[in-house]
Amino acid sequence: MSEYNIAIIGASGYTGGELLRLFYFHKNVTVSYITSRKHKGKKVGEVFSALGNFYPDLEFSSISAVPDNIDYFFLALPHSVSMLHVRRFLEIGKVIDLGADFRIKDIDKYEKWYGMHHEKDLVNNAVFGLPEIYRDDIRNAKLIANPGCYPTSVILGAYPFYKENLINGEIIVDSKSGVSGAGRNPKENLHFPEVDSNFYAYSVNGHRHQLEMEQELKAEIVFTPHLLPVERGILSSIYIRTSKSLSNKQVEEIFKKYYSKEFFIRLSGNKSPALKDVRGSNFVNIGWSVTGNLVKIFVVIDNLVKGASGQAIQNFNLMAGFPENTAIDNLPLFP
Amino acid sequence: MSEYNIAIIGASGYTGGELLRLFYFHKNVTVSYITSRKHKGKKVGEVFSALGNFYPDLEFSSISAVPDNIDYFFLALPHSVSMLHVRRFLEIGKVIDLGADFRIKDIDKYEKWYGMHHEKDLVNNAVFGLPEIYRDDIRNAKLIANPGCYPTSVILGAYPFYKENLINGEIIVDSKSGVSGAGRNPKENLHFPEVDSNFYAYSVNGHRHQLEMEQELKAEIVFTPHLLPVERGILSSIYIRTSKSLSNKQVEEIFKKYYSKEFFIRLSGNKSPALKDVRGSNFVNIGWSVTGNLVKIFVVIDNLVKGASGQAIQNFNLMAGFPENTAIDNLPLFP
Amino acid sequence: MSEYNIAIIGASGYTGGELLRLFYFHKNVTVSYITSRKHKGKKVGEVFSALGNFYPDLEFSSISAVPDNIDYFFLALPHSVSMLHVRRFLEIGKVIDLGADFRIKDIDKYEKWYGMHHEKDLVNNAVFGLPEIYRDDIRNAKLIANPGCYPTSVILGAYPFYKENLINGEIIVDSKSGVSGAGRNPKENLHFPEVDSNFYAYSVNGHRHQLEMEQELKAEIVFTPHLLPVERGILSSIYIRTSKSLSNKQVEEIFKKYYSKEFFIRLSGNKSPALKDVRGSNFVNIGWSVTGNLVKIFVVIDNLVKGASGQAIQNFNLMAGFPENTAIDNLPLFP
Amino acid sequence: MSEYNIAIIGASGYTGGELLRLFYFHKNVTVSYITSRKHKGKKVGEVFSALGNFYPDLEFSSISAVPDNIDYFFLALPHSVSMLHVRRFLEIGKVIDLGADFRIKDIDKYEKWYGMHHEKDLVNNAVFGLPEIYRDDIRNAKLIANPGCYPTSVILGAYPFYKENLINGEIIVDSKSGVSGAGRNPKENLHFPEVDSNFYAYSVNGHRHQLEMEQELKAEIVFTPHLLPVERGILSSIYIRTSKSLSNKQVEEIFKKYYSKEFFIRLSGNKSPALKDVRGSNFVNIGWSVTGNLVKIFVVIDNLVKGASGQAIQNFNLMAGFPENTAIDNLPLFP
Repeated sequence: MSEYNIAIIGASGYTGGELLRLFYFHKNVTVSYITSRKHKGKKVGEVFSALGNFYPDLEFSSISAVPDNIDYFFLALPHSVSMLHVRRFLEIGKVIDLGADFRIKDIDKYEKWYGMHHEKDLVNNAVFGLPEIYRDDIRNAKLIANPGCYPTSVILGAYPFYKENLINGEIIVDSKSGVSGAGRNPKENLHFPEVDSNFYAYSVNGHRHQLEMEQELKAEIVFTPHLLPVERGILSSIYIRTSKSLSNKQVEEIFKKYYSKEFFIRLSGNKSPALKDVRGSNFVNIGWSVTGNLVKIFVVIDNLVKGASGQAIQNFNLMAGFPENTAIDNLPLFP
Repeated sequence: MSEYNIAIIGASGYTGGELLRLFYFHKNVTVSYITSRKHKGKKVGEVFSALGNFYPDLEFSSISAVPDNIDYFFLALPHSVSMLHVRRFLEIGKVIDLGADFRIKDIDKYEKWYGMHHEKDLVNNAVFGLPEIYRDDIRNAKLIANPGCYPTSVILGAYPFYKENLINGEIIVDSKSGVSGAGRNPKENLHFPEVDSNFYAYSVNGHRHQLEMEQELKAEIVFTPHLLPVERGILSSIYIRTSKSLSNKQVEEIFKKYYSKEFFIRLSGNKSPALKDVRGSNFVNIGWSVTGNLVKIFVVIDNLVKGASGQAIQNFNLMAGFPENTAIDNLPLFP
Repeated sequence: MSEYNIAIIGASGYTGGELLRLFYFHKNVTVSYITSRKHKGKKVGEVFSALGNFYPDLEFSSISAVPDNIDYFFLALPHSVSMLHVRRFLEIGKVIDLGADFRIKDIDKYEKWYGMHHEKDLVNNAVFGLPEIYRDDIRNAKLIANPGCYPTSVILGAYPFYKENLINGEIIVDSKSGVSGAGRNPKENLHFPEVDSNFYAYSVNGHRHQLEMEQELKAEIVFTPHLLPVERGILSSIYIRTSKSLSNKQVEEIFKKYYSKEFFIRLSGNKSPALKDVRGSNFVNIGWSVTGNLVKIFVVIDNLVKGASGQAIQNFNLMAGFPENTAIDNLPLFP
Repeated sequence: MSEYNIAIIGASGYTGGELLRLFYFHKNVTVSYITSRKHKGKKVGEVFSALGNFYPDLEFSSISAVPDNIDYFFLALPHSVSMLHVRRFLEIGKVIDLGADFRIKDIDKYEKWYGMHHEKDLVNNAVFGLPEIYRDDIRNAKLIANPGCYPTSVILGAYPFYKENLINGEIIVDSKSGVSGAGRNPKENLHFPEVDSNFYAYSVNGHRHQLEMEQELKAEIVFTPHLLPVERGILSSIYIRTSKSLSNKQVEEIFKKYYSKEFFIRLSGNKSPALKDVRGSNFVNIGWSVTGNLVKIFVVIDNLVKGASGQAIQNFNLMAGFPENTAIDNLPLFP
């Protein structure tokens, strides 16, 4: 099998670190170029002390000097920044964008939440990188819009109900995320003494991520994110009114119909999964409870893996023709 | 003013510790008798090292030998145990039961969730100890059923909407609690390595506390509790469909109408309060967000204070004629 | 008794917040002026949501416009900044500096670790604000150098051995502090995901705080601070080789000789105290263990209270003639 | 290469779970038998929800019915229990005991700390399973005494100084461990609300693990363990007075002399490593600082991996002829 050269653009944050951690065991891949504005010239170990000796020679370079032998670019950049570079990278190789720039097909909606879009034409070429739904399109894509962390959990949890026409009215989504979802940049509200032993909802009037949910689920979403005092993990509690009464057994059958062959989706049954069921892994655990016409669905993912870097590698594996779980089949870390 | 002798029955758990902490500064009260089956004969400091020198002589005694000079009994016992003792205590003094035995007026519902009731007659004499709603009844009560921690947060959050006839259909309540709410008894699911960095929902098919909510709010409650990796605090995210469309300003007016004179209720406005806004204190912070006909209400309390021991003392103050906030007016601890 | 006007200079950090929390119940004190460069014009509640309704009208002002009716200035400023203002404040009232500028009598040592000193004359007038050692001097002081958090724990733990001439050779101090000790300014190394579930030593080649320890204990100190993933609290493990062999009983007698009348010092005996024995309070808990000629001493304090703001108020109480524990006699918060 | 059948005796605790997690990717190994008194008859997923679908058919059996096709027994039993079974297992295969029963060569010392020994003869046949020191002996052993978690960190940190005859007097060891080191059995002192935001030393008058340190380092050890509010990880701060003055560079050379070829030992330089540098991995990170004749050494390991199950597999790999890092070469999980 051939060898692939990978570049990680914006590699000094948590999703960059996860790409480095996970790609290390991908035998056909070499991470050959990483960039960081802030840490240019530093070695991997100076920015990620846990990863130092695994990448002893690799150092952070400039985004403006990417070599022309890169096969795949992984973009871990703030939204609005990816779009400034993606056309250039597409001339060299394929692109998996972990940011929001190419996720939303409706440009007006995008611009309302994120600001002006400068690469509208490319949006149509981008494939929403949720392999459990768009596997075939992903195989042939040149530009992947890797989904957001909250949307990954919510879309996978509600998708079978959408496909089965079971959703009646809006979906209430009460999500809780670990702090790494907010990135590595220090801010007062993410400062350790502010977060520890604490908990609250935020963006209570609306959050950008509901755009992706609404696009993929064709439903109104009432979405409220909360900040958990944990490093990693998202649990989304999804409340769906169904158009007919279901039993727990029927809910199980619905999930099995869509997910029984999915390597990364595990059904937890009539209970809630826990963050640590998936920590450090690319798995998605789904549990549920039915009360009459109301179905509660509980979905957990590791926001940095299935919610970001692991899913990006899953997409890469599809695009490059590797088994879908290559390098991302590691088990969760418990306790 | 006269002096009151207090007994805490079942005083070695977290709510017992909070009663000791808070009563210490109540000038007209002496905690003169505390009981514990497990720690009988030990001094306070052997069970609560933080409180040792404040109660140097007090030691845990037997529940069977309570002295006859007790004016108020605070019962911090498991449900079904309080009812075995309360009649005896009522012959000596007044009783504030922090457990569930006298909260539910509908005995059938109680028995379905908690098991057989042996003191049905007393249930009618008991007053549901939520001062913001039942202040006058509490003043004259001899037996108080102190509300549960989750119900305190949910009832206070939804009560004005119930009174204003604004609730349309069931209320979805997504609550998250710190671990002290589950008591001091060690269990594998509350063992530090199982809880830390973790998060999940539990009792997904129904939880006893929704009985209280339904009784007080006369509405169907879809209640899902979650376990937070924090010591103290509850945040309840309450989703109410309203019978007419409201603005954030109108929601504020509704809350003000009911709570503007309440010392312990603070309105946070169009955002979520945080656990640490109330930690260690008897305050209730309420925030909200309106989206069309759906109102999100966010309520935080300290489950051990307003959710248990602080509210018990608030009830005591009313019954004994003290200013309602005596000994429980301390500020929250942040960070 | 007369009323005192207090100013808190640099009040938007954690020590400022603690002064606001604790002074609230000091009946003879009004916090009438608070400053913050960053939050000028904001109300207390915008910076400390937990404290909002207790100081509804107070807002952050400028350091350059302090009114002339201030009786006591509490300076919660970075080192090197206090010294720029203290002379001006001393013309108006008395000063308690929570920073390092006036703690070190040996200017050369100060300048080696902290940089140039601009108010050398004032250093001699300043009293090291550790009441258990310098109570009488504090009563008559106009300028107090409130000790550092680590030094408070270490000096109090080792002081009786110094006074009894029992210290043989250097003292090894292995201290562990919660994150609030590093202040409220967000930094990558204090970002929640970096600290949680983590632990490490820092400043391994030397830390400024050992200056204070050496000055007060007249001994060589080998000091190593570590960062705990907790919000508050310091535990210092102090290893002293003694010039003669001692029993645990003799160690207890030594501590009793010096501290038996101290309200804020509690002896835990032949075991280690825990952070939560003192959380939120001004107490100092001391435990020990003797192995031959080696004494281990374990000291816990809340770094924001006895390690900063509580001790500052203790000093104020002495200076203004109040009982030493006024407004700082609250019990620890457990759990 | 041949296939090995593995039995894990006492597999329902944390070290059992780690063996299951790590062995999953060992291509030549089948975990074919696991035992648990408490969970007999349950499937892996009922005890470790994170591991469920990786061992869909494996269930917990009885210790009394081990099959005779087992090649290697991993014993994760309480001390004093392993010795009751090991002779029987040795008739079937080789044994790696993760407990303390065969670690201490001096039976008197063992019995003083642990109680009566019933298999004294076997002690001499057991090899202390620290591969970096006893690699050759391990290859030929039939019974491995896998070292304790604290001793692994301390012995590896101090060993080069012992071998170089540089240790002058006793070694002061201030260790801090995550809670998983105390096992999965719930106890009040390990209950989440008691541990979180807390910290203290324990066993201040002596701890069993210092026996192993003294045996291997031939020095007096003053050892004090502390309990960290984290799930995993040990940091040992080791204070050694050296018989001659050393520079940081010389210390580095000493460590390099012994460890430069060790896959699992990483030198962090003149600073402290952090728990998360090794979390979930078998790595040992070592840092240092020299002050005159006093060397501070900071060692971090994951107590469940290099401190227990990972090291057990490292020993197994040596015994069975696999590359030493097979199945335990995964990278640390950060953040």
